[in-house]
Amino acid sequence: MEIFEKVESQVRSYCRTWPTVFTTAKGSEITDENGKTYLDFFAGAGTLNYGHNNPEIKGKLLEYLAEDNVIHTLDMHSTAKADFLKTFKEVILEPRGMDYKMMFPGPAGNNAVEAALKLARKVTGRETIVSFTNGFHGMTLGALAVTGNSMKRGGAGVPLNNVATMPFDKYMDGQTPDFLWLKTLLEDPGSGLDKPAAVIVETVQGEGGINVASAEWLRGLQELCREHEMLLIIDDIQMGCGRTGSFFSFEEAGIKPDIITLSKSLSGIGMPLAVTLCRPELDVFEPGEHNGTFRGFAPAFITATAALDAYWRDNTFAKSITAHASWLDEQLHKIIDDFPELKLSTRGRGLARGLVFDNPDLAGETTTELFERGLLMETAGAEDEVVKFLPPLTTTIDEFEKGLGILREALSAVSTKHVKVLAKV
Amino acid sequence: MEIFEKVESQVRSYCRTWPTVFTTAKGSEITDENGKTYLDFFAGAGTLNYGHNNPEIKGKLLEYLAEDNVIHTLDMHSTAKADFLKTFKEVILEPRGMDYKMMFPGPAGNNAVEAALKLARKVTGRETIVSFTNGFHGMTLGALAVTGNSMKRGGAGVPLNNVATMPFDKYMDGQTPDFLWLKTLLEDPGSGLDKPAAVIVETVQGEGGINVASAEWLRGLQELCREHEMLLIIDDIQMGCGRTGSFFSFEEAGIKPDIITLSKSLSGIGMPLAVTLCRPELDVFEPGEHNGTFRGFAPAFITATAALDAYWRDNTFAKSITAHASWLDEQLHKIIDDFPELKLSTRGRGLARGLVFDNPDLAGETTTELFERGLLMETAGAEDEVVKFLPPLTTTIDEFEKGLGILREALSAVSTKHVKVLAKV
Amino acid sequence: MEIFEKVESQVRSYCRTWPTVFTTAKGSEITDENGKTYLDFFAGAGTLNYGHNNPEIKGKLLEYLAEDNVIHTLDMHSTAKADFLKTFKEVILEPRGMDYKMMFPGPAGNNAVEAALKLARKVTGRETIVSFTNGFHGMTLGALAVTGNSMKRGGAGVPLNNVATMPFDKYMDGQTPDFLWLKTLLEDPGSGLDKPAAVIVETVQGEGGINVASAEWLRGLQELCREHEMLLIIDDIQMGCGRTGSFFSFEEAGIKPDIITLSKSLSGIGMPLAVTLCRPELDVFEPGEHNGTFRGFAPAFITATAALDAYWRDNTFAKSITAHASWLDEQLHKIIDDFPELKLSTRGRGLARGLVFDNPDLAGETTTELFERGLLMETAGAEDEVVKFLPPLTTTIDEFEKGLGILREALSAVSTKHVKVLAKV
Amino acid sequence: MEIFEKVESQVRSYCRTWPTVFTTAKGSEITDENGKTYLDFFAGAGTLNYGHNNPEIKGKLLEYLAEDNVIHTLDMHSTAKADFLKTFKEVILEPRGMDYKMMFPGPAGNNAVEAALKLARKVTGRETIVSFTNGFHGMTLGALAVTGNSMKRGGAGVPLNNVATMPFDKYMDGQTPDFLWLKTLLEDPGSGLDKPAAVIVETVQGEGGINVASAEWLRGLQELCREHEMLLIIDDIQMGCGRTGSFFSFEEAGIKPDIITLSKSLSGIGMPLAVTLCRPELDVFEPGEHNGTFRGFAPAFITATAALDAYWRDNTFAKSITAHASWLDEQLHKIIDDFPELKLSTRGRGLARGLVFDNPDLAGETTTELFERGLLMETAGAEDEVVKFLPPLTTTIDEFEKGLGILREALSAVSTKHVKVLAKV
Repeated sequence: MEIFEKVESQVRSYCRTWPTVFTTAKGSEITDENGKTYLDFFAGAGTLNYGHNNPEIKGKLLEYLAEDNVIHTLDMHSTAKADFLKTFKEVILEPRGMDYKMMFPGPAGNNAVEAALKLARKVTGRETIVSFTNGFHGMTLGALAVTGNSMKRGGAGVPLNNVATMPFDKYMDGQTPDFLWLKTLLEDPGSGLDKPAAVIVETVQGEGGINVASAEWLRGLQELCREHEMLLIIDDIQMGCGRTGSFFSFEEAGIKPDIITLSKSLSGIGMPLAVTLCRPELDVFEPGEHNGTFRGFAPAFITATAALDAYWRDNTFAKSITAHASWLDEQLHKIIDDFPELKLSTRGRGLARGLVFDNPDLAGETTTELFERGLLMETAGAEDEVVKFLPPLTTTIDEFEKGLGILREALSAVSTKHVKVLAKV
Repeated sequence: MEIFEKVESQVRSYCRTWPTVFTTAKGSEITDENGKTYLDFFAGAGTLNYGHNNPEIKGKLLEYLAEDNVIHTLDMHSTAKADFLKTFKEVILEPRGMDYKMMFPGPAGNNAVEAALKLARKVTGRETIVSFTNGFHGMTLGALAVTGNSMKRGGAGVPLNNVATMPFDKYMDGQTPDFLWLKTLLEDPGSGLDKPAAVIVETVQGEGGINVASAEWLRGLQELCREHEMLLIIDDIQMGCGRTGSFFSFEEAGIKPDIITLSKSLSGIGMPLAVTLCRPELDVFEPGEHNGTFRGFAPAFITATAALDAYWRDNTFAKSITAHASWLDEQLHKIIDDFPELKLSTRGRGLARGLVFDNPDLAGETTTELFERGLLMETAGAEDEVVKFLPPLTTTIDEFEKGLGILREALSAVSTKHVKVLAKV
Repeated sequence: MEIFEKVESQVRSYCRTWPTVFTTAKGSEITDENGKTYLDFFAGAGTLNYGHNNPEIKGKLLEYLAEDNVIHTLDMHSTAKADFLKTFKEVILEPRGMDYKMMFPGPAGNNAVEAALKLARKVTGRETIVSFTNGFHGMTLGALAVTGNSMKRGGAGVPLNNVATMPFDKYMDGQTPDFLWLKTLLEDPGSGLDKPAAVIVETVQGEGGINVASAEWLRGLQELCREHEMLLIIDDIQMGCGRTGSFFSFEEAGIKPDIITLSKSLSGIGMPLAVTLCRPELDVFEPGEHNGTFRGFAPAFITATAALDAYWRDNTFAKSITAHASWLDEQLHKIIDDFPELKLSTRGRGLARGLVFDNPDLAGETTTELFERGLLMETAGAEDEVVKFLPPLTTTIDEFEKGLGILREALSAVSTKHVKVLAKV
Repeated sequence: MEIFEKVESQVRSYCRTWPTVFTTAKGSEITDENGKTYLDFFAGAGTLNYGHNNPEIKGKLLEYLAEDNVIHTLDMHSTAKADFLKTFKEVILEPRGMDYKMMFPGPAGNNAVEAALKLARKVTGRETIVSFTNGFHGMTLGALAVTGNSMKRGGAGVPLNNVATMPFDKYMDGQTPDFLWLKTLLEDPGSGLDKPAAVIVETVQGEGGINVASAEWLRGLQELCREHEMLLIIDDIQMGCGRTGSFFSFEEAGIKPDIITLSKSLSGIGMPLAVTLCRPELDVFEPGEHNGTFRGFAPAFITATAALDAYWRDNTFAKSITAHASWLDEQLHKIIDDFPELKLSTRGRGLARGLVFDNPDLAGETTTELFERGLLMETAGAEDEVVKFLPPLTTTIDEFEKGLGILREALSAVSTKHVKVLAKV
């Protein structure tokens, strides 16, 4: 591991939580150079919804690479892209009655967000974007401005502007009516809020701590957007591609966003790929007005197509996610009941779940215990008080049971340690 | 091609210049769905320095993918990353006496630029970045602010600030001494230029029209940076990885930048990969202060390592680039002489070359003729007056000769058409 | 009036509400060129707290101008300024236990605000200023950014940034606890609110519609500022100099702002004068770091000193304001009761009072009727729903009774008209 | 003077150069509390073009104040304002064929600049303003952004944006053709300069060091503005009202600016007054879209009218300025010749003149010697290397001779001291 210390920048982060060197991975498991295998309930922060090295997807990739098919094409036409567009239209858009246009803004999720913000500003001729507390949208300057985390914002080195932050669902005291603040500002010409171009929101805030926006809240937001002619951007980078049970995370709410961003699990196997979808009348960029070198990475089109073919042609996969999610929720409630001293609670949608600790320190201790016992899970939330489940959606009940067993052990260890500490006091 | 029209955003651009659907590619050739093969002297805008589907590099990739090696790891440690760091240190950094730290800022070149700008601002506590006329650094909000192209800037939808633009080498009339303007501003406390955090520059501006900064100019810029405590950022995304003859494009000038960005050909085969290098004392980001989902795409580490192993362990490759560049320059001068009516000139360094047309319209006509005859080349420059050579560095003399033959035919066709037009007048 | 139409910009505004040409004025009365005299309950938007052409103050002015005393001195020392500083220290600062430093930032209130914001940013090294809904602080770019009015903000022509707007006291539904939103944002590192340099607030929002911050709210705000190391700026330009009963409008709340701005009635007679006061440890500007040509207008120092001498050496004046305010409040409640059909209410502090109309249109009609009957009053508030009392503080009960008589007539007229309209429906 | 130290902010500046307390002043003389009289060749930084306590102007003021004429009227119509508008139209606009509209943006010069910038941005819908090296336009955030001085810019505490700085006439090496840089940027779509809304410029930079723009340069600038549809704003706050010989400083160049700012000597006697003039088709602000409390300070209208009546109804005054300027220039050349060891030179237009020292330290020493000998002059320029003449335009030849006598004495003293210093070396 010396080479990392010597050459890699100290900005590296996850490797500090899980200090080992990983080599191979398959499905929900990942193995380090010492041969120790871990259950991975983190899945590349939601990038590996179909598991590591998913065989169906990788099969198509190897097939594609075996021949001298084009790998890199910028935004030239390629058969790989044509297939992806056709499949996405057929499998995702048409069945949902969506006639969106797809833009390839670059390989990273932040590229999709930047393109969405630029497009919204261009279409409306306005500058302000409404974002939400604890939102996370990326680290490039435009995306960072709509991100809540103060440490990450501080890295910008310049003021982050043209943004107004509003309270996410259930952010305040639970008493304040939804949108009271935003609505009042929009309706009051003396409020100081310049008419916004758009609203950008995650339906479930992953980095922010598995904060769930209710379907009602999302519908209310859409209504407010329409009333005040603001575009509604759903950032579905982490919560899309099945994470909450349906392909898009907003389907349950029955809303129709103006702009949608997708990335992470879109390529199915961890290949960098991102898209920005918009309603056709918003497709107003000039040719080349936004671009990026890696916006035509053909192998990612292949694996993305393979993922759609394998998992989204019927609703079997969606149903299994929902079933697993419901089962997991039940198990977590049992665990919560079995560890009353830790004052746990849970929240989430689909297979994005949080185990919330009353005492944030114990959440961190728990992930350390989990790592030692062979389970990768991360903390999230403003105070890192949430232990986050983002397992591959293909995780089996057996694997879940194994993981929950490890979780119980870790919680016991933390509880025991905690009791001792309390005893001292 | 209907599917592109129906589903893909109209922002797509290169596919308008080359209206066909590409399927396979190998070395310097690319083939469309009709079986027509084109010489590719564009190479993914400099991303395919080692050619399409380079066999040595792809061999390593297939080998890696054949086993269930990890594909996606965020910034966890992986053997793939360790090998890349070791190889980069051994093959690139150490022989050049460079003790830089490497940061993985995300998969796109713009991610590397954004990280570089953030780092420079954090280190210095200042906001202003000096950029240069016709510079190109990417489409995310921070990178776009230091990019010159007005159409692309217009896409931002918000003012692009915290930047001061300065004249690139030979930008003005050729009479003005280098840095007269920048130097005067820096030395005059009444100039209105707030003390800059850094300077960001390309040694050869690719998108800007193959504008070459002389070694002397680059050394002068470095001196000015040191004198005024500004960091020097070399954006080597397009011109690095051998494009100008050496691995870094600034080696010839003998300068030592504070921060370097690399991407495009770094992965060797078109996989999204980008890095930001900085002098060790500038490595001041907190863990996670900058991040990005695809910053640990292991297959790209594998191919990047393979490319370094195959091409940079000795100077054979570098020498061949220089030799080919010199030969190409000679050939272009012959062509210039043979078409005096087109008033052509050439400029460039290494295998980044421009054929400059006095009449910009004729440059565009030429690339159309080239496409029809089976050669892919793009225009560049403020008025699209330059036909740009960015061929794979592995292009053989035979291929070059074939390409130049096509170029002569195209120029003849343009000249003939042009003569008729003139005759009418 | 033709000359105004021909030469003066159409930006002129009050002259449209009161379309006549004024010539002379004395105390609470102003006379136009037709010899018609109006009661003036607007007092130059709070600039003429001591009445038009206050004889004591004007006496000192004429005395000063009769000799060749210096008129214009930039920030050179003058006896006029020395006298003002001494008197302000003796009459205002010392009795209140305030050891503030005084800065002369230019003649306009906006100059005082701009200096306050610059100072707060310099002291803290932070950029964000917290402002409040419906706040009004001026039209220069820095002051406009903290002003709520959307029409005026639109005039900037550039995004107004580095500001976060928060709800003023009683802004929302009356259910939300004070500072719930601001406090939550400040305490949550994921909130997206960058740590503010300062808070700027009016104790009573004049332009915003006579919105009163309670003493408790102001104390809560001060506490929040101290807890989060934000400077507290009270903009007392309109509400200071006795308007609410005490010299500073915040005295009743018992708070100690870090920075205070004063202007409008400070010079006592309408001469342009503004000051920025700060706690001595905040006096960190370099000599000349902020300046302005008219920051040493000696006649204004003379009249300002005269006003302090005449009205603030004992508490007689303050008591009379409070007594009149209390009497006026009583009278307004009678009027409200007598015109139930207009659904009126009242709010205010001291002699800053609003008569609030349920139907904003009727407020505008009322001021028109008032003008015709010889009483100048203006509307305010987000929807211009408030008829605003800002009479000279020297207005006698007789004058008030006369004015209220006119008000009753106007309300009757409006009511009658209103009844007819209703009858039609 | 203790009271200043105790109560006034340390931001005070001129009082440090001239550490005494001034009491009375008349014409070109000012007297301190010790009865010492100084010649004043600074004239309130160009605010007292008609001298201190000008009797004709003050006569009208006293007359106006003797009756109870309105003093403060916001933007209500007043006879005082009507008279000023009529007189300005008759005496200034009509004879020059100018049909400009006049806006009263507030009492300070910075208010006039802020209104000009807002108007230009509103009219064009663009954000960028082109300003010039060493320009000075005021301390409010909008005006400060177009001001060059780095110390003053630093006081902003936020990045100053939406501005591009260009070289003023003769700024660089004297070899570079006029506008080479600006013109090239404007014509190059890849230059990074976003199309500007306007250009703001002083014809002679007073604070910047008496830098003179030639008539040819100004005409070139106007041409460039027209060609690129940028508005031309002449900031004539310091150089207008006769300072350079004609009422507007740009008359000699024969240009017709789109927007003009005036302040300082406009009121004739040091009363705060500022106006923004614009071509009638640019008068697009909504009523009240820009405003300010002291925009209708009637006594200033009275004195401004009196000044126009007394000095600008015929060309006697203008001729005398030119004659005095020419004589002064001659005298300064004699002085330059008589003190070769000081390496002096001179520049300026009309009665804005600079005596430029090769060694900036000696300029500062000279003003100290002048003060001791009873002559007030200030240094200016990026390195404070210029001793600046901004005397009242009513200064007599006798007074000039007296002043120049003192100047010679001071230069001798400096020279002697300087010789000794040199001797030591």
